Amino acid sequence: MEAKSRYNVAVVGATGAVGEKIIEMLEQVEFPIDELRPLASKRSVGKTVEYKSGEVTIQEAAPEAFEGIDIALFSAGGSVSKQLAQEAVDRGAVVIDNTSAFRMHEDVPLVVPEVNKEDIKDHKGIIANPNCSTIQMVAALEPVREKYGLNRIIVSTYQSVSGSGNDAIEELKHQTRAMLDGETVHTEIMPVKSEPKHFPIAFNALPQIDTFEDNHYTFEEMKMVNETKKIMSLPDLNVAATCVRLPFFYSHAESIYVEIDDESISVPQLQGAIKDAPGVVLEDDIVNQGYPTPLSAEGKLDIFVGRVRKDLDVPNGFHLWVVADNVLKGAAWNSVQIAQALIEINSEA
Amino acid sequence: MEAKSRYNVAVVGATGAVGEKIIEMLEQVEFPIDELRPLASKRSVGKTVEYKSGEVTIQEAAPEAFEGIDIALFSAGGSVSKQLAQEAVDRGAVVIDNTSAFRMHEDVPLVVPEVNKEDIKDHKGIIANPNCSTIQMVAALEPVREKYGLNRIIVSTYQSVSGSGNDAIEELKHQTRAMLDGETVHTEIMPVKSEPKHFPIAFNALPQIDTFEDNHYTFEEMKMVNETKKIMSLPDLNVAATCVRLPFFYSHAESIYVEIDDESISVPQLQGAIKDAPGVVLEDDIVNQGYPTPLSAEGKLDIFVGRVRKDLDVPNGFHLWVVADNVLKGAAWNSVQIAQALIEINSEA
Repeated sequence: MEAKSRYNVAVVGATGAVGEKIIEMLEQVEFPIDELRPLASKRSVGKTVEYKSGEVTIQEAAPEAFEGIDIALFSAGGSVSKQLAQEAVDRGAVVIDNTSAFRMHEDVPLVVPEVNKEDIKDHKGIIANPNCSTIQMVAALEPVREKYGLNRIIVSTYQSVSGSGNDAIEELKHQTRAMLDGETVHTEIMPVKSEPKHFPIAFNALPQIDTFEDNHYTFEEMKMVNETKKIMSLPDLNVAATCVRLPFFYSHAESIYVEIDDESISVPQLQGAIKDAPGVVLEDDIVNQGYPTPLSAEGKLDIFVGRVRKDLDVPNGFHLWVVADNVLKGAAWNSVQIAQALIEINSEA
Repeated sequence: MEAKSRYNVAVVGATGAVGEKIIEMLEQVEFPIDELRPLASKRSVGKTVEYKSGEVTIQEAAPEAFEGIDIALFSAGGSVSKQLAQEAVDRGAVVIDNTSAFRMHEDVPLVVPEVNKEDIKDHKGIIANPNCSTIQMVAALEPVREKYGLNRIIVSTYQSVSGSGNDAIEELKHQTRAMLDGETVHTEIMPVKSEPKHFPIAFNALPQIDTFEDNHYTFEEMKMVNETKKIMSLPDLNVAATCVRLPFFYSHAESIYVEIDDESISVPQLQGAIKDAPGVVLEDDIVNQGYPTPLSAEGKLDIFVGRVRKDLDVPNGFHLWVVADNVLKGAAWNSVQIAQALIEINSEA
């Protein structure tokens, strides 16, 4: 990609939960845009999106729509990325892909800027944005890894429905009202739209996010395992995850157990490392009931860490509670950060 | 306690969420009752409770109310138990206490009948019912311990509001409606009524159950640690817990990691041990999306286990998902089971 003062930027999936936020973020950070080109499926062609107090008309996401585009941010599902990402690259764009389509490809950097911004330099046209639940975990743990080493992660997640898009948000609303009113509860989206069975998410917890793999873990759980190793360049890190969908709208929370190299580290030392890390806010003041929650993190760009405790038996073991807005830092904001880092690296080159 | 064909049974806290269920359970299992004496605070005196298609009048929970009582089931909070349990014992009753008041006392057996029914024999008047989140975990893990040994537990909980009583259930309903309608959300109960700060539980997750201890763990988390060691008679077991309150009404779910003695055990072997255990139901059929949820476990007496997986790196490590109705198996049903075991042991003696 050529260094320029302003770039032509396409947003694929402009009407989705993440696409909408990407456009909001691009405006908010005053990304140097010459032309913003929102793309979506045929159904949405002709609709408009708001950008800088104007309206921009949505065009169809088709190969020729990427002519003249410098940066294309994809968040329209894996199948759209598989179909169109290479078309965009062939026309000279750098693709920042928010789906799981290319994340584990050897040639594709998987980037959380606070952790491995430098990996962007190795891109061959596509840069992948990690899974939402992975992003907040690796960014919170990177300062720990850097200062004290990292050997093991066991994580149990508390994930909001917005990770499944706008349909899931609507389903939670409808089901909640129906249950409070004693009416029939319709189940169509959760836990996974394409799966045969659906269960209520309202006033419930579903230990299934995405489909099951042969090893009995879900695809979401394996994303957390494999993506973490790749982003942190720690292929031998022990990681295990249990991913659970819960009845709230935004933010994912994570109960994380880690083992570090050094047995002598205290809670204040670990808190200190986290406190100084970019993009991470330590919110851990138990005397005043200070800890993050999904509602308190909603709409924020940072990752919040609380409940830092030493394991009661294992001297190099620690427990943490990590919360972030899954649509912002977990998706839209991380994608825009990658785009910012890309043009920064470009202008240095 | 003398062996009899029928017993006089007092239920202290008869108007509470658990007390109501205890009376229901006593009726359901046809507990051999001569007189049922529901006790509560002054406020409720004269009200009635339903029992065997009749009405029984509530009396005041005072020392003299225990005259002639054989078995007294307490679930009216720790302060009532501290004040009245010994009074009941002095009048010849055996107390089955559902609060945390006596659980860690050396002289008090802490009992989950599926795990340590024999400990009832050592009682000196008081038998304690463990914390709800502890009961379902130890009952699910006992068959694992018995067959394959148990060295380590790391648990993250997903706990319903009914663990905080009827006020918390009402608060979740009110807050949920207010949020859906865009109205002011009132916070008075959650996370802990007596604490200075309250946060919304509707569409949220609160990583605080009970107050904080000096070691940065909550009292709920330390209950899980200490009670588990006592019930399983494993003082050196490594246990760590993170307890989280969530917006559903009934059932607690738990994401549990365990390390066993034997590295060669397979998932089917572990599933087999759980399947054969009393009071535990294996619901683990991922091909057909079979796993327990808080809604599916609501109103059931059993403990449900699903998502059994081997850790990806540690050969003696396993992950499980355990769900049970916290008001039933976690409280009322376990108390009634203790009462049943008590009269069974009595009649054998």
